[in-house]
Amino acid sequence: MKHALSVTREQDFSAWYQAVISEADLAEESGVRGCMVIRPWGYGIWERIQALLDARIKATGHENCYFPLFIPLSYFEKEAEHVDGFAKEMAVVTHHRLIQKDGKLVPDPDAKLEEPLVVRPTSETVIGAAFSRWVQSWRDLPVLINQWANVVRWEMRTRMFLRTSEFLWQEGHTAHATVDEAMEETMKMLEVYRSFAEECVGLPVVAGEKPENERFPGAVATYSIEAMMQDGKALQAGTSHFLGTTFSQAQNIKFQNAEGSQELAQTTSWGMSTRMIGGLIMVHGDDDGLRVPPRVAPYQVVVVPMLRDNDEDAAILDYCGELVASLNELDAFREPVRALLDKRPAKAATKRWGWVKKGAPIVIEVGGRDVAGGNVSVIRRDRLYREDGKLDSQIVAKGDFVTGATAMLEDIQASLFADAKGRLDGSIDRSIGTLDALKAYFNASARPGWALVQWARPTGEALEKVVQWLKGEKLTLRNVPLDADAADGACIFTGGQAVERVLVGRSY
Amino acid sequence: MKHALSVTREQDFSAWYQAVISEADLAEESGVRGCMVIRPWGYGIWERIQALLDARIKATGHENCYFPLFIPLSYFEKEAEHVDGFAKEMAVVTHHRLIQKDGKLVPDPDAKLEEPLVVRPTSETVIGAAFSRWVQSWRDLPVLINQWANVVRWEMRTRMFLRTSEFLWQEGHTAHATVDEAMEETMKMLEVYRSFAEECVGLPVVAGEKPENERFPGAVATYSIEAMMQDGKALQAGTSHFLGTTFSQAQNIKFQNAEGSQELAQTTSWGMSTRMIGGLIMVHGDDDGLRVPPRVAPYQVVVVPMLRDNDEDAAILDYCGELVASLNELDAFREPVRALLDKRPAKAATKRWGWVKKGAPIVIEVGGRDVAGGNVSVIRRDRLYREDGKLDSQIVAKGDFVTGATAMLEDIQASLFADAKGRLDGSIDRSIGTLDALKAYFNASARPGWALVQWARPTGEALEKVVQWLKGEKLTLRNVPLDADAADGACIFTGGQAVERVLVGRSY
Repeated sequence: MKHALSVTREQDFSAWYQAVISEADLAEESGVRGCMVIRPWGYGIWERIQALLDARIKATGHENCYFPLFIPLSYFEKEAEHVDGFAKEMAVVTHHRLIQKDGKLVPDPDAKLEEPLVVRPTSETVIGAAFSRWVQSWRDLPVLINQWANVVRWEMRTRMFLRTSEFLWQEGHTAHATVDEAMEETMKMLEVYRSFAEECVGLPVVAGEKPENERFPGAVATYSIEAMMQDGKALQAGTSHFLGTTFSQAQNIKFQNAEGSQELAQTTSWGMSTRMIGGLIMVHGDDDGLRVPPRVAPYQVVVVPMLRDNDEDAAILDYCGELVASLNELDAFREPVRALLDKRPAKAATKRWGWVKKGAPIVIEVGGRDVAGGNVSVIRRDRLYREDGKLDSQIVAKGDFVTGATAMLEDIQASLFADAKGRLDGSIDRSIGTLDALKAYFNASARPGWALVQWARPTGEALEKVVQWLKGEKLTLRNVPLDADAADGACIFTGGQAVERVLVGRSY
Repeated sequence: MKHALSVTREQDFSAWYQAVISEADLAEESGVRGCMVIRPWGYGIWERIQALLDARIKATGHENCYFPLFIPLSYFEKEAEHVDGFAKEMAVVTHHRLIQKDGKLVPDPDAKLEEPLVVRPTSETVIGAAFSRWVQSWRDLPVLINQWANVVRWEMRTRMFLRTSEFLWQEGHTAHATVDEAMEETMKMLEVYRSFAEECVGLPVVAGEKPENERFPGAVATYSIEAMMQDGKALQAGTSHFLGTTFSQAQNIKFQNAEGSQELAQTTSWGMSTRMIGGLIMVHGDDDGLRVPPRVAPYQVVVVPMLRDNDEDAAILDYCGELVASLNELDAFREPVRALLDKRPAKAATKRWGWVKKGAPIVIEVGGRDVAGGNVSVIRRDRLYREDGKLDSQIVAKGDFVTGATAMLEDIQASLFADAKGRLDGSIDRSIGTLDALKAYFNASARPGWALVQWARPTGEALEKVVQWLKGEKLTLRNVPLDADAADGACIFTGGQAVERVLVGRSY
């Protein structure tokens, strides 16, 4: 069967990923190291993610703020573990002026900053400093804030959406009076991410706690949602951290409690980024390009008129215009439907395949025969081909299509999720009890899934030994799923009594 | 009369401005040079500005994208005038790693970038480079894109919202086949800014062309909207630039025209920033704090229950909850009304004055007596006091208030604009014909308005002489209003035949 992309997932998953990004006009290299240009269709998906996630963040009582892009070095010096975690990948501003020298622009030596500034890799330190100003009494708690921002981590090997030097994200930061409240917040936001990823982006995930070696620098506990890509690899798609008093000690976030004595606040932070779009591509894409779940699709229905530069064209355009207008009056997922009439000057077949590659959930074609019969030709992006391998374009009465459009969009959303969920559930081996079996499982196939194994939760050096062994097999510990069965056997790594089950997989 | 702020506009406009920002919890100094923390109420206003302006930008056919924060030096070197305009105020990234040295964090000398990167002060160069990849044929034109982003200009003297080293904005960038189309775009976006400022933010403005000396570096023509603050000063609140082929030459944005030959594209750019919030404060604020026009108010109606820690409290809270629910079901300005029940643990009077200072358009108080009588006590922020100087709190039947809430919000929006419009129109002197009279006008009062004077539109050195004379009087040329009368007399500066009328004023 011929497909719209020149490379398939089977042939070369990595090249396929780049091809989807390019052919769907999602993003491109910018000429600036490690930074991408996010094009309208890619940015439109991000705007949908922002709108839906922002509403969920606000519904849980958080307010949006904006904090500075630049962070003085001294803020990092206050928390050793945090700076160690980020110092290797920071972009540092050292000058505030350029001059011409020998016909070239160079930083002006006379405009060297006294204290260099770091371009934020994350904002715990600068937001902690603000919290220390805002929090005086228990009455000021909790502080529940969030920001949508760009951050920079100077990655050595970059891949669009998955790992870029600059990326876009939201970062939530909160301060609480007690450990219990802060832990409740940490878990609440993890659940916001899980439900958002599954319900809006259609990404089934496993929510759980990261092992010690994978914690955020400075965190007491880190939780993640892990999604499985079609090559079986794990993508960490969102994290929620309980930070304890690490940052309140460093930044002096103290409050007077109800009894009148001073306490350190308990803080949390949590983030989800444009990496989510990488996950969406690798979970829902196929050999014809991207498939965007309707809830996050910039346009859910695209209408392509089949024009022939003759007298019929005006009638076709009128017919399409009315169709788009009636679709835009509908609601789906409790929002107005987003339909587009694609009037660009190009051949209908070119436009059809363009929208297939972009992954618009429903593509409608309308030619003279459709107008005469009162019909439309409907392509569902989630079911592109018939059993015989031909394009599955269904001719439907226009009125019937409009009446059923909401249900069809909801069905596409559900079917994309169900496909991915079936793949995830069917790709986690829960029966592996020895390291040899673990090794064999990951070597048995070019695209293994994950293994959920029992372990004793070693710490420190014992954990480091486990991590190194896994590294030799190109494996990583993903998380300890919240909903895993209790341990009832031996630790696969140490042979001792297991205390919980941990996910092992290859990762992005 | 006693007011909520400790300093009045009359006493010290600049101190009053800072007091409004602080007392309304809009923003604060961040501890990072020239960068502010935008707090939830300030950021909420920005989110409203974004939502309303973004819809207008999209309605004119533009799509959102995202381009890199960092721009290589070499991009600037290609366009001399542009780099000259910005080189003095650029933040420059020179290193990508930190190391510990003598117990301090310093940029790692081994991690020095081969080519330093500039933190974008504006994105013409990096977006121009993308346009050169995207544009091949006349069929690819126009390219109509916009981005919401943070930018950095290393300002020496900063003032919150008005001039900060980092600020938030949108920047539109477009490429066209012809000068006419690009000029049409430039004027269309100027009109988007004018109508947005007036209709949404309630800021009356004068739209016009900037004189040559005030052009954006690299622009062929720059247009602005100028708003008048309550101290009579002018604030440039949005700009739209016709860039001609300046950037398409530098970045090689060429297309094959319909006849098959190569042409340079004609480009435009246009921007509006968080400075708009500074304008909002200085146009609508009063001695009790901020007054936010309802269309951009994060909450339009705030309900404050007057609780007394007794049995009546539950009934009051129920009554308030129902009120807020019925308000939130209403529409105003074709959007759902935004009402909030303020349940925070504080005295009702403290909360009332908090919302007055924040400028919530309508503040409702509900006590036991109101519940018993089926009433609410209504404060309109635009008419805070009665003629006798007492707080104008009107007792109204709850049902009547709800029925009239949409009209009241629309009336507040209109009245804030009308007040400001009256002030603007009444503060432009159109009769001044000599430099002596001009000088006298600006010296006659501590808060002069503007003068619209006839001039010969001198250029080059002749213009520079005019600018220097004005500088001596602390005056600047604002713009040549689009709707000004034709010239019919002598140039106030040269005595020659005037060709148009130009606005003169003090500026921010």
